[in-house]
Amino acid sequence: MNFLEERIRKDGIVKPGHILKVDSFLNHQMDIALLDEIGREFKRRFSDVPVTKVLTIEASGIAIAYPVAREFGVPMVFAKKSKSINIEGEMYVAEVESFTHKNKNQVIVSKKFLSPDDHVLIIDDFLANGCALQGLISITESAGATVEGLGIAVEKGFQIGGKIIRNLGYRLESLAIVDAMDPETGAITFREQP
Amino acid sequence: MNFLEERIRKDGIVKPGHILKVDSFLNHQMDIALLDEIGREFKRRFSDVPVTKVLTIEASGIAIAYPVAREFGVPMVFAKKSKSINIEGEMYVAEVESFTHKNKNQVIVSKKFLSPDDHVLIIDDFLANGCALQGLISITESAGATVEGLGIAVEKGFQIGGKIIRNLGYRLESLAIVDAMDPETGAITFREQP
Repeated sequence: MNFLEERIRKDGIVKPGHILKVDSFLNHQMDIALLDEIGREFKRRFSDVPVTKVLTIEASGIAIAYPVAREFGVPMVFAKKSKSINIEGEMYVAEVESFTHKNKNQVIVSKKFLSPDDHVLIIDDFLANGCALQGLISITESAGATVEGLGIAVEKGFQIGGKIIRNLGYRLESLAIVDAMDPETGAITFREQP
Repeated sequence: MNFLEERIRKDGIVKPGHILKVDSFLNHQMDIALLDEIGREFKRRFSDVPVTKVLTIEASGIAIAYPVAREFGVPMVFAKKSKSINIEGEMYVAEVESFTHKNKNQVIVSKKFLSPDDHVLIIDDFLANGCALQGLISITESAGATVEGLGIAVEKGFQIGGKIIRNLGYRLESLAIVDAMDPETGAITFREQP
């Protein structure tokens, strides 16, 4: 087990309905030392690719992307979620349809902050159905920039998002992949990773 | 001028309607080195008070609160904005009425993450009318915790928020206080601070 898997097993709470609560250290209250370690780990895993921007999505993604951008010494950009906006040609917009909720959301990034010269590392805290990540990929490619990889703290391996992103040929690194959870015992099964 | 005022004068854009755009370095694209410096400056200014938690509000506040929490070596908690939630007794909730938009919003924090033992430093990127900050103060006091101070990156000194917070007796430190902006010339007048 790596440091994040250990922490999830220690402080994560499994609830019925495939819910894993990590809000005491990852996405409501944040353990900064843990996040700094996540930043170093992504730097290690993506040390072979050029990165000019770290891209994430509000809100909790910001706290994962911060230490990653810090390690790479590049700016961080966060996409905003929007129900409907005046686009005015100033924004890259991805329409993202939720698998779960059936509704559509917009993900937006100002055109000022992504260009064809950019090599983008996409970072987020959670990956389940992958809707948000697909929006971030779409926006990066709308800008003509290169998706160098995607880094996720916690992937729900029993949901479809990771498979879709990997099938599309993207390099996706998830620090912890949860393959099964038992709300009765609280047991969490992580996927073995090389 | 301090480092943040200099950066605002260099890269901030004044638009009609009292709008100051700092989205190239502070709240859409983030300059991590600048934010780290903001973290160190708040540590310096609040070095005389005990701090056990840094509290902010999604989304862009997270990127300011991160380096502050890092400097203090304490957890960061971010409040969520919510139109309406099932409270279930698990959340501290502040109803915040916007001066500008007349609508009400809820600001929520899980009760797990604030207790009477906590000494809270409240951090946010912008202060204008102060509605969000009032919500964070209300939540902190609902928890029986102590508001040790409030740190803001950019205060709009010509709006009412800063005056309200200071009149209430809180210690409020704003790294840059904009007293006037001229959209025609782009000139920005900062308040002299000791």
